[in-house]
Amino acid sequence: MHPNDPSLRSFVEGASDSGFPIQNLPYGVFSTASDSRPRVGVAIGDYVLDLAVIEECGLMPRMAAQTVFRQSSLNALMASGGYSWSIVRKHISQLLRHDNPKLRDDAVLRKRALVPMSSARMHLPVAVSGYTDFYSSREHATNVGTMFRGKDAALNENWLWIPIGYNGRASTVVVSGTPVRRPKGQIKGPDFPAPIHAPSRRLDIELEMGAVVGVNTALGSTLTVEQAQGAIFGFTLLNDWSARDIQQWEYVPLGPFQGKAFATSIGAWVVTAEALEPFRVEGPRQEPAPLDYLKQAGAHNFDISLEVELIPGGGAPTIISRSNFRGMYWSTAQQIAHHASSGCAMRVGDLIGSGTISGPDKGSYGSLLELSWGGKEPIRLADGSTRTFLEDGDRVTIRGFCQGDGYRIGLGEVTGEITPAA
Amino acid sequence: MHPNDPSLRSFVEGASDSGFPIQNLPYGVFSTASDSRPRVGVAIGDYVLDLAVIEECGLMPRMAAQTVFRQSSLNALMASGGYSWSIVRKHISQLLRHDNPKLRDDAVLRKRALVPMSSARMHLPVAVSGYTDFYSSREHATNVGTMFRGKDAALNENWLWIPIGYNGRASTVVVSGTPVRRPKGQIKGPDFPAPIHAPSRRLDIELEMGAVVGVNTALGSTLTVEQAQGAIFGFTLLNDWSARDIQQWEYVPLGPFQGKAFATSIGAWVVTAEALEPFRVEGPRQEPAPLDYLKQAGAHNFDISLEVELIPGGGAPTIISRSNFRGMYWSTAQQIAHHASSGCAMRVGDLIGSGTISGPDKGSYGSLLELSWGGKEPIRLADGSTRTFLEDGDRVTIRGFCQGDGYRIGLGEVTGEITPAA
Repeated sequence: MHPNDPSLRSFVEGASDSGFPIQNLPYGVFSTASDSRPRVGVAIGDYVLDLAVIEECGLMPRMAAQTVFRQSSLNALMASGGYSWSIVRKHISQLLRHDNPKLRDDAVLRKRALVPMSSARMHLPVAVSGYTDFYSSREHATNVGTMFRGKDAALNENWLWIPIGYNGRASTVVVSGTPVRRPKGQIKGPDFPAPIHAPSRRLDIELEMGAVVGVNTALGSTLTVEQAQGAIFGFTLLNDWSARDIQQWEYVPLGPFQGKAFATSIGAWVVTAEALEPFRVEGPRQEPAPLDYLKQAGAHNFDISLEVELIPGGGAPTIISRSNFRGMYWSTAQQIAHHASSGCAMRVGDLIGSGTISGPDKGSYGSLLELSWGGKEPIRLADGSTRTFLEDGDRVTIRGFCQGDGYRIGLGEVTGEITPAA
Repeated sequence: MHPNDPSLRSFVEGASDSGFPIQNLPYGVFSTASDSRPRVGVAIGDYVLDLAVIEECGLMPRMAAQTVFRQSSLNALMASGGYSWSIVRKHISQLLRHDNPKLRDDAVLRKRALVPMSSARMHLPVAVSGYTDFYSSREHATNVGTMFRGKDAALNENWLWIPIGYNGRASTVVVSGTPVRRPKGQIKGPDFPAPIHAPSRRLDIELEMGAVVGVNTALGSTLTVEQAQGAIFGFTLLNDWSARDIQQWEYVPLGPFQGKAFATSIGAWVVTAEALEPFRVEGPRQEPAPLDYLKQAGAHNFDISLEVELIPGGGAPTIISRSNFRGMYWSTAQQIAHHASSGCAMRVGDLIGSGTISGPDKGSYGSLLELSWGGKEPIRLADGSTRTFLEDGDRVTIRGFCQGDGYRIGLGEVTGEITPAA
């Protein structure tokens, strides 16, 4: 049976009703108090299946000359190739089925291999080779363009032709839960005689999905959209924290730099592209028609429901946005095809940010910049307080899931709390 | 005696009259026909001193738990720390002195450890963690700004306050000698109804220096300008190949992307910051005075003479530009201090491009864009042909050196030949 089959069930209690049923099997890197070596695991219900243990017990075929599971990142697993991605997932699926006694009835092995999630410390799942951030929600680009450059210049002429993106900073990608320190930077308000160097006053989020590239390409070679789709190992939630005041002063003419270099948070779990197959949908109609190298046939978007929660220090949670990944104008596959179009080498571990995922109406915007319309329309939180941008002590959590027929593919969450500037 | 002492001489014949005298000792990574394992070497005259062999013969103290020399990049050596950078250089200097018989009189060891440069295959010296490109020549920024945005908007308001830079693509950094394939990309001339996807027609060079960062900093921490200076392991020549037509259509609002993602060439030799100490000079006066976090006392520029040679396929060489690194408005130390100012983590192996090094007059411009003034004023080559931008078969070589008292510190060269689009 295919690992995506909706009728599959696991013997792991509660898995079916969680975001991590047997149809999901997302990968992460974890360690425990009793074994501090980071290794690769798979989420199933409230447990992490320790793949290093499974491999060492001979229950997993070797995918490469070296172990791909007793590793501090998913990169070795990804580098083993797309064929082995499927084989490994199939093995894990079989091992966790309700009707397979091998692990189910081996109490000693189960105790070793199934680690309660509450006792797993999650690490950055990917050794990020390059971090590239796109800008592919038409609604977001229009909103931001309107605020930064006025309504007439909102959507630059190139936007409908190019999946616009820029290189981000790989060294600052952190795993969910890592505190985010408010950055200092150069800020110059329109009425300032000169810039000042001060903590950001317009600290923001960006609700995004991150795609993880699982293949290497040679410098000078390119990818079709279909090949680019096949190069995606999986997806994770991504929050591209942004200091709007630093960004606004620095970004002309070479783009965002220190305004986005202090932290980019990603989820601890990478949901495989294979698990998301049933949720592929067509994106918005593209008009003008893309140039040949960006033409795509069929469904290359994904129906992933997303929400953003904000909890003020010690306060009550408010869902400040509900959006969906399906509305992106440019698909991830198109982004990657464009990325490689100059002959740019793609690398195992490249992280591709989708760009902020804003929907058509205010409740679906993916940044505070848009939600508070440049700070002019504060949003109200459940505890009665208001926000334009983030305050110290605020915690922001992004969650996402795909709704299947009787099951949910959870993307987990990406969360971070703002700590004061140094 | 300090390794920089001008009176030092090496027993290696011809070293004193070359760009690689005993005062230089630049690091590279090489392999040979008889030993294909890349390892770390030092250039001395026309030879490469094999540091892996030197270490394995017990002539070099261990700098770390693991060997830092039998490695395919300089990263392990750099990660061993600034103190060991000096110790290692001192040891090498002593070993190569004319009055030290240890290596000089050991014919067997000399044959093993001193490899003729002509039989060494050079590799990319650094595993590039991140590639960041700045834009710090006032003359270049003014020239390009004038052509792209008109004279009045040439130097954007932020330029005199911020060392403007952007994240480049680390995966496309290649070692000198690697052919450069003409990229394809989206191009839209002002009179085109829609963009086309075609080989670049405005393929260009950028004469730059690359600084290699040799330390890791923690996310959330910053660097003073002095600390940033100390974080530089060394410098190498850099050619930031650029497709101007692709760049012009894509760069608003998020900066250069595919127009600079197809190749960035660096020299095979990294000259240490220590060897360049005698050539520190003050840069141009900075007015307005930089904000406190960018204030620097004393000399943070380097007096490095640079030239660019163009050889058409099968033709004669022409020096198309002569410039000097000393004229840069923002110093490398200021660039790195700014880079870390948001709390951005710096990594061993980060490559920091200076930005195109243009001087005040036409013969000193660092790009064809400027030399041919946007293609309007073709330059004449020695063989009578003309160029606006690069043609297939053109070879471009950048060379550089510092003139000492009776010796020269050579930066070597960075060269690349243009091959036709795929």
